Amino acid sequence: MSVPTASKVVNGREDVAPDTRRRVTEVLDRLGYVRRPRFEASKPPALIDLVVHSLDTAWSGAVLHGVEQAAHDAGLDVVVSAGLTRTRGGRPERGWLDKLCARGSSGVLFNLAELTPTQYAWLDEHRIPFVMIDPVLEPPPGVPSVGAANWQGGVSAAEHLIGLGHRRIAVIGGYRRKQCSSARVAGYRSAMAAAGLRVPPDYVRYGNFDETVSYQRMCELLELPEPPTAVFTCSDQMALGVYQALAKRGLRVPDDFSVVGFDDLPQARWVTPALTTIRQPLSEMAATALRSLLRLMSGEVPEGTRTELSTRLVLRSSTAPPPDPLS
Amino acid sequence: MSVPTASKVVNGREDVAPDTRRRVTEVLDRLGYVRRPRFEASKPPALIDLVVHSLDTAWSGAVLHGVEQAAHDAGLDVVVSAGLTRTRGGRPERGWLDKLCARGSSGVLFNLAELTPTQYAWLDEHRIPFVMIDPVLEPPPGVPSVGAANWQGGVSAAEHLIGLGHRRIAVIGGYRRKQCSSARVAGYRSAMAAAGLRVPPDYVRYGNFDETVSYQRMCELLELPEPPTAVFTCSDQMALGVYQALAKRGLRVPDDFSVVGFDDLPQARWVTPALTTIRQPLSEMAATALRSLLRLMSGEVPEGTRTELSTRLVLRSSTAPPPDPLS
Repeated sequence: MSVPTASKVVNGREDVAPDTRRRVTEVLDRLGYVRRPRFEASKPPALIDLVVHSLDTAWSGAVLHGVEQAAHDAGLDVVVSAGLTRTRGGRPERGWLDKLCARGSSGVLFNLAELTPTQYAWLDEHRIPFVMIDPVLEPPPGVPSVGAANWQGGVSAAEHLIGLGHRRIAVIGGYRRKQCSSARVAGYRSAMAAAGLRVPPDYVRYGNFDETVSYQRMCELLELPEPPTAVFTCSDQMALGVYQALAKRGLRVPDDFSVVGFDDLPQARWVTPALTTIRQPLSEMAATALRSLLRLMSGEVPEGTRTELSTRLVLRSSTAPPPDPLS
Repeated sequence: MSVPTASKVVNGREDVAPDTRRRVTEVLDRLGYVRRPRFEASKPPALIDLVVHSLDTAWSGAVLHGVEQAAHDAGLDVVVSAGLTRTRGGRPERGWLDKLCARGSSGVLFNLAELTPTQYAWLDEHRIPFVMIDPVLEPPPGVPSVGAANWQGGVSAAEHLIGLGHRRIAVIGGYRRKQCSSARVAGYRSAMAAAGLRVPPDYVRYGNFDETVSYQRMCELLELPEPPTAVFTCSDQMALGVYQALAKRGLRVPDDFSVVGFDDLPQARWVTPALTTIRQPLSEMAATALRSLLRLMSGEVPEGTRTELSTRLVLRSSTAPPPDPLS
């Protein structure tokens, strides 16, 4: 097989005998080679994967927005999977990991994921770089992750309520074992301790991040012999359940009861009164994670393994001084 | 170059002289051939593209959720781009189309897109199958699209208000030229006409789909010599602006004024009072579009070009009979 002849075949020229063309094609095929894609004027962008829990939440929308924008700036395309929802306990399907590998993913961002030791080992073995966004549990040493300054956010929430004059302040956490939730509750405890305020065990409750369970927790808090005058809920979504429990009792926000949320998702502006909350910069966290991934992909060894982006109090209309107990 | 020798090179065998290895590699390189990806045990899933306007809205979250789920079921991976936001008038970047082609996309779903005739021609020329989800304008003949039964939704919204006893019913549409918006307003007009009710020209107003403009439109409606007692807003987001305009005037929903939205996004449950709205099944629309795309990809000629999924009234707490004018 001469190079000029083979070239003619490859380039689709007409001046090759049909039989020669067939033979050249067969040889190349046996060699295990395939044609380059036809359009090579612009090089196809590398693909990275974003694996999330679910796609129809404001939370994932903010993360996706940040990843996609940063990926676009870096000339990458993003494959999005909600693979984590298809299994128990937030662990992605094994078949899904095989797909990653088959496609030759350049890197993966996991959002709110909890991987098994086997899955971590598998990613290592196949040399697929990955970064965790807000991991459920502390990832193994050396695995880079990006999250919000959750502890500081808990401190800010409690300090705000203490500053307004509240003394009986409760907290409703998300899943007790989730890193982000326990850090927020720990921040609340630190601020209470620093102000010399007692935290009765009954004032610390956990649910998931959803409104239904927080509605229950809030009802329980209001039935205590000495109910709180304010609550810090570890998500905006949970604040909605709190609002509903308060409305059912005829208690007004913020005149009778103050509420601080966490996240600052769009719904914080939709509720009445608008929710005072702790903003975590989800899109920026996602963009930061993507840039970490790019560094891993280019062979850099990550310096720090956990990057925390700062949180801040966003004042709206759901907090006020506690009601006068004598009035 | 003998086939056995070349095979050895390709398969990474050690028993080839370094010089021979180099020469074989060079020849294959000159021929324009590349190695197959290393992992071929499981065939890489085909990629399809979803191109949306923006990613951080509940709207796009619902669409993405539907597309990803249906793609997973079909064994496809989804590349998500917010390319439509990076240009004027919702027209994707030309560079972005080049990327599609370079990657060899198997097909594209466009959400809320408005393509130019040139871009339609370009997609045709490169034989990239595509389907539109809720297109801004009627696409050219033969281009399949999936949307909601917008006209019927407008009928249902107006009929519900008429049934409650309202006679002075206004409408706030989204962008006047958007197909979905004009169909909803037309549905409202049909129901009003069927009930023998007049629609004063002042009662039909347009904005975008956002709350800020609908706040303005609602203020204008309330300043009319004969203001309406109810309004149908062509999105849930716009209903939030209407709520704000009513609250500023001290008008209560639904006692003083009734509001019907459109979409049934999560925020419809977040507002107080919860919003009565017309549900459009966004995730189902997205899944339907994906299945249409699969049929196009397998070479089928689409039967109908526009598929409409039904809308339905979701009763919540923002509508009531009109206030008694004598009270």
